[in-house]
Amino acid sequence: MLVVQKYGGTSVGDLERIANVARRVAASHDEGNKVVVVVSAMAGETDRLINMARKIVDRPSEREMDVLLSTGEQVSIALLAITLESMGYSARSYCGWQIPVVTDSAFCSARIEEVNKSSILSDLEKGRIVIVAGFQGVDQDGNITTLGRGGSDTSAVAVAAALKADRCEIYTDVDGVYTTDPNISARAHKLKKIAYEEMLEMASLGAKVLNTRAVEFAMRHEVPLTVLSSFNFHDGTLVTKEDLDMEKESVTAVTCNLKEAKITLSGVQDRPGVASRLFSALAESNVVVDMIIQNASAQGITDISFTLPEADLAKSMDIVRRVKDQLGAKDVAGTDDIAKVSIIGLGMRSHSGVASKMFTVLADEGINIEMISTSEIKLSCVINKKYAELAVRALHEAFGLDKSPQSG
Amino acid sequence: MLVVQKYGGTSVGDLERIANVARRVAASHDEGNKVVVVVSAMAGETDRLINMARKIVDRPSEREMDVLLSTGEQVSIALLAITLESMGYSARSYCGWQIPVVTDSAFCSARIEEVNKSSILSDLEKGRIVIVAGFQGVDQDGNITTLGRGGSDTSAVAVAAALKADRCEIYTDVDGVYTTDPNISARAHKLKKIAYEEMLEMASLGAKVLNTRAVEFAMRHEVPLTVLSSFNFHDGTLVTKEDLDMEKESVTAVTCNLKEAKITLSGVQDRPGVASRLFSALAESNVVVDMIIQNASAQGITDISFTLPEADLAKSMDIVRRVKDQLGAKDVAGTDDIAKVSIIGLGMRSHSGVASKMFTVLADEGINIEMISTSEIKLSCVINKKYAELAVRALHEAFGLDKSPQSG
Repeated sequence: MLVVQKYGGTSVGDLERIANVARRVAASHDEGNKVVVVVSAMAGETDRLINMARKIVDRPSEREMDVLLSTGEQVSIALLAITLESMGYSARSYCGWQIPVVTDSAFCSARIEEVNKSSILSDLEKGRIVIVAGFQGVDQDGNITTLGRGGSDTSAVAVAAALKADRCEIYTDVDGVYTTDPNISARAHKLKKIAYEEMLEMASLGAKVLNTRAVEFAMRHEVPLTVLSSFNFHDGTLVTKEDLDMEKESVTAVTCNLKEAKITLSGVQDRPGVASRLFSALAESNVVVDMIIQNASAQGITDISFTLPEADLAKSMDIVRRVKDQLGAKDVAGTDDIAKVSIIGLGMRSHSGVASKMFTVLADEGINIEMISTSEIKLSCVINKKYAELAVRALHEAFGLDKSPQSG
Repeated sequence: MLVVQKYGGTSVGDLERIANVARRVAASHDEGNKVVVVVSAMAGETDRLINMARKIVDRPSEREMDVLLSTGEQVSIALLAITLESMGYSARSYCGWQIPVVTDSAFCSARIEEVNKSSILSDLEKGRIVIVAGFQGVDQDGNITTLGRGGSDTSAVAVAAALKADRCEIYTDVDGVYTTDPNISARAHKLKKIAYEEMLEMASLGAKVLNTRAVEFAMRHEVPLTVLSSFNFHDGTLVTKEDLDMEKESVTAVTCNLKEAKITLSGVQDRPGVASRLFSALAESNVVVDMIIQNASAQGITDISFTLPEADLAKSMDIVRRVKDQLGAKDVAGTDDIAKVSIIGLGMRSHSGVASKMFTVLADEGINIEMISTSEIKLSCVINKKYAELAVRALHEAFGLDKSPQSG
């Protein structure tokens, strides 16, 4: 089998952990697999480099940031190759430009356009283990690019897609995808498999186990992903195409995002162009707005509420206050005292009554819902932050996700 | 003017020093020069990376070492470019493979074959400052290579040669080339200029100011080199083609190397093949032998002495003891208690009596000469280590190199 394995920063955090990764890679090779390994920078290294650049200037040149940051993965691939060779295996490392992993020229957040598979295949034919630097690529003009945070997952999926790999294994510090955060509910259990669409919703709702872009890429190219831990040998979670099993349950997982904030403009003149002016001003400052709700207008006056990353609250309040008068708004209020609790499941498409059940569960716990947003396979409610854990546990139980004592 | 500036590891040792380098580069650019900067890794970085690899295995894969080590310069070029851009200058960094600096495939000690000048020239035309990673290149197959210790000097010279630069300025932590080590003789003075040939002898005799290969390269391509300090604005030393001035003095400089050792085999059978067997055995273990002296044979028995790097003494003694019987030698003795004191000067070709004057000076100080080696423009004597400083000072004075109180 042709296997692509990806190891994140914690998995290659020091020489001992790199040796651990090397043993896992070697074991897969010894089983007769052709193995391609994609690695991230050693944990902490990317932050160390960013901090150095930020000491020079607040907004360093993005082209040069990519030159700087890409050294992190380059160190990892070299150390892993040295380790494997010292164990008697034939290994060969590749930077993004050497494959090449061709991207567009959006420095610091480039998108992969093409992965050339010829060197990799030729090395695999020679019995070599191939090691590829994650997170990085090269544009058409030969400039180094990086894919943005979590980009190594995308690198692994793109390499797996190009090679038509039989498996793409994402090793991380958790051993799979859980029905909810085990730190919030001790009754969370690991999913055997999950559909791309569900994983995508989970990733965008704040589950950090997989990068959103990587899941999109895997879905588009139908790359079978497995999420596993590099620290144990438990079965992981398979992320794959939707199948009939998956629709049996109405809800697959419950997620919770505590890192959002909410801004409400009240007494807004309800006339064309108001929303456009407001959200253009925010977009210009790179604030990514998530949920937007506009109440029904009464006497030409309405309220607009929206959520945004907690970290952008102060900046955004400034912006909104500046445009408030142009919008004819009376008042602006902001708070980060909110949580977004969501349920996700392909089954929601065929099971009726999922939404009303969610609202009932929350109401029964005395939790007020401040905002609601839906998609075909997810339902999110913004509530007061202090009820977040209570809401997650209640929903997890109500939708039958609590593990039975037997199921371990 | 087109100027190539090279800054070593100490000159870019931290962010403050990088800012200092950026100001110097910017000043040269502001004067109307087209500036190309070649930088080394930040001081200590290369050693840090080597130590990491050595913790994994004694002899790491050389290909992968080059992948690892080349990150050092890559960090430097990015940080310098970020600094220059933050100061409002347009700057662009290049790794070895981006230029490309094409080398052979001798990992860890590659030789430069060609420097492509087109990207550099096109950037300079656009008013950009070009920053090139020293020490690294890429072979014909796209593998990363490094040039070995001190390789950044060679990178700078090769870039200067390709661009036919008007000047190649080597910035370091000393402000030029001295008549002898100022730590040994307070009367040493800085040379205004020195011939390539003399500089080459000095470099191979242990003066660390310039890398030997870089000087060879500069000589071959007639690149005018200047050695200056990055920490002050003193005039440096110009390394250039021989001119008439240079031959006026018989001796230009006195050097001293304390890092050598000597091995003597006595009672060796004087028959063909003995020296060959001895030095082949050493060469196989990568011991670089410097001076070799074989005494006149008496009754078919002779002595052989040779010098070698102090660090290789123990290893070499083992080798020599192993081949001793094959050589029919009676005894083997090794010592690192030696110093090699040398005088260098183009003028030695035309001034007679330089050698006898050197021997007389040493004899007058009661210093015994253990070995002698000569070239057209240098004369080296191996003496007991404890007399090294005395010998240097005496020779420096005897050949008229002491600075007068006025000359500062």
